[in-house]
Amino acid sequence: MVAELSQLRDKIDAVDKQMVALLAERLALVAQVGEVKSQHGLPIYAPDREAAMLASRRDEAAQQGVPPDLIEDILRRTMRESYASENDSGFKCLNPELRPIVIVGGKGQLGKLFAKLFTLSGYDVRILGSQDWDRADEILDGAGMVVVTVPIHLTDGVIRRLGNLPADCILADLTSIKSEPLQAMLEVHQGPVVGLHPMFGPDISSLAKQVIIYCDGRNPESYQWLLEQFQIWGASIERVSAIEHDQGMTLIQALRHFTSFVYGVHLAEEDPRLEQLLAMSSPIYRLELAMVGRLFAQDGSLYGDIIMSSPQNIAMIKRFHQRFGQAIALLENQDKAGFKQAFDQVETWFGDFAGRFLKESQGLLRQANDATHRG
Amino acid sequence: MVAELSQLRDKIDAVDKQMVALLAERLALVAQVGEVKSQHGLPIYAPDREAAMLASRRDEAAQQGVPPDLIEDILRRTMRESYASENDSGFKCLNPELRPIVIVGGKGQLGKLFAKLFTLSGYDVRILGSQDWDRADEILDGAGMVVVTVPIHLTDGVIRRLGNLPADCILADLTSIKSEPLQAMLEVHQGPVVGLHPMFGPDISSLAKQVIIYCDGRNPESYQWLLEQFQIWGASIERVSAIEHDQGMTLIQALRHFTSFVYGVHLAEEDPRLEQLLAMSSPIYRLELAMVGRLFAQDGSLYGDIIMSSPQNIAMIKRFHQRFGQAIALLENQDKAGFKQAFDQVETWFGDFAGRFLKESQGLLRQANDATHRG
Repeated sequence: MVAELSQLRDKIDAVDKQMVALLAERLALVAQVGEVKSQHGLPIYAPDREAAMLASRRDEAAQQGVPPDLIEDILRRTMRESYASENDSGFKCLNPELRPIVIVGGKGQLGKLFAKLFTLSGYDVRILGSQDWDRADEILDGAGMVVVTVPIHLTDGVIRRLGNLPADCILADLTSIKSEPLQAMLEVHQGPVVGLHPMFGPDISSLAKQVIIYCDGRNPESYQWLLEQFQIWGASIERVSAIEHDQGMTLIQALRHFTSFVYGVHLAEEDPRLEQLLAMSSPIYRLELAMVGRLFAQDGSLYGDIIMSSPQNIAMIKRFHQRFGQAIALLENQDKAGFKQAFDQVETWFGDFAGRFLKESQGLLRQANDATHRG
Repeated sequence: MVAELSQLRDKIDAVDKQMVALLAERLALVAQVGEVKSQHGLPIYAPDREAAMLASRRDEAAQQGVPPDLIEDILRRTMRESYASENDSGFKCLNPELRPIVIVGGKGQLGKLFAKLFTLSGYDVRILGSQDWDRADEILDGAGMVVVTVPIHLTDGVIRRLGNLPADCILADLTSIKSEPLQAMLEVHQGPVVGLHPMFGPDISSLAKQVIIYCDGRNPESYQWLLEQFQIWGASIERVSAIEHDQGMTLIQALRHFTSFVYGVHLAEEDPRLEQLLAMSSPIYRLELAMVGRLFAQDGSLYGDIIMSSPQNIAMIKRFHQRFGQAIALLENQDKAGFKQAFDQVETWFGDFAGRFLKESQGLLRQANDATHRG
């Protein structure tokens, strides 16, 4: 048996070596595609082309008896690597005539990421860090675009110091709230204004498939190139009003972060042994623990700022808390019929999305479990 | 440019075709390994062998300029497919002398899964469905093992009907609570007893890397073969006391399910446009929406049963609700220092796990985002 197994394993080793060589070849070829795209200013991520390519690979796989989902997952994973490496070849500059871009807060993580991407695209980038305000006039002199990316509680004050920009300068911010900064920018500057919210952290490997929300401020025709530049970097752009944005973020950010925070507090007070909890976990609970735990490896002040950035957020959190209390009444009365009725109403509200989410999460939970024993 | 791109794309197509062929070859080789393992009764999942194999593949990849994480992710994904297909070749039977296995509730989803796995392992499996109680004596006659897998609220009653089993018959259950069923089984049957809780749903593709919790009841030496059989199927087994189990499940199941339920109720009442919410989402919020939404594609009564199965669950949920309310006070007082202090305490409680979870979740969130535009 040992001989038989070791012979088979040698063959598997040989197959895997060929697979590594093929991957190296594929990454090199896609890098060449990236260079051609970059020269001609094509977006690094083309959803339709990607979907068509994957569909034909699935067909080929099925013909060879390879599960189509397997090849799709492998290619998606491989493409991510390619997207990440496109940063290396740089991006086409869509507005080569633009005067310098000043990133206010360019020494923060998100500021650094955007500074890098603008530089890779051939723009002249200047940084105005918190220690540089004595030289602010000099740094801002002749700016073509100013991007504000400072902690939320400082944003308004920083924007108010930008009253002397050239009339045609674009003023933008990356804050995770939009109504107030947009209002402040419109008040302080008479030229083009746009509010931006990148829906990702600074630790992403590329902008491919990441979302940047934008809220029009003034003279949108002056910053269309910027939105196209984001798409060349691979991002999806999403236009919403500042009010819709801030409403959405009460759920997407404030309630989410706060619930994770409270769950962390709750766990620390209940004080279960984490090792044992993990050993007993289902894949979905393990995922939940990871999503809560990751919060506490990050900056608490940042999350406090985001959650407390508007009374709307606090009102949303209080409504959730109230509904939580009402639902507890169902449990205390052992009201299984009431529970089922509420459950069914929510099922109806989700409509087709419930089934879609079940399918989507199944793949993800399996991927999470694949990696469970990773060292 | 078009000619240049289409030439490169042809080359990529050719590479991908070779990749599909290699995958077909690899799956076939691993299937042969599976057959050898099955003949000799080796577990389909061998953590040490897998870790060693992955480590050497990572080295080889690095030497060829291929990111090690890429080959590791691809191989993990491919191995999952292999684990799933090992079901086809059957499993070694570790207790060929065992008299018939009766699965009480064997027409439910989980019952069907275990019936299938026992049958694939060469056991004689009989089903006692809810309609079969008039023939129960006949079906249970001479049973070597009886496995109870019925809805929680019926479990106790069903166990109480099993008072006439052969003295050496193993009595087991798969209920998601353990203290009460274990107690009932010990009272009703004088032979070997074991409580089991499979920490996965019936939709898994294989038991590889899935957890089965077991709580010793009586005569553990009689059911060691069963625990080994689970491992041959690929599962990790985890021994805990019934009390520890039920305590863990107040967090792992009751609070988790209930929070998702309330979040669904909250969303339905807030009534945001789901399409727009998804378009604006960060990868982590999209994941959260999917994890909540998936609940409502499933059976509401089942979740109600699990949550209301013990007063401990309700007490845990109430403590969480109370802490949630206390934390809201921080927000209402704009107490950023208090928030930061609580945050830091939780960070300390998580210890090394916070960073570990951050790293683990990063990979998962990237995988989630890879698939974002999947049709």
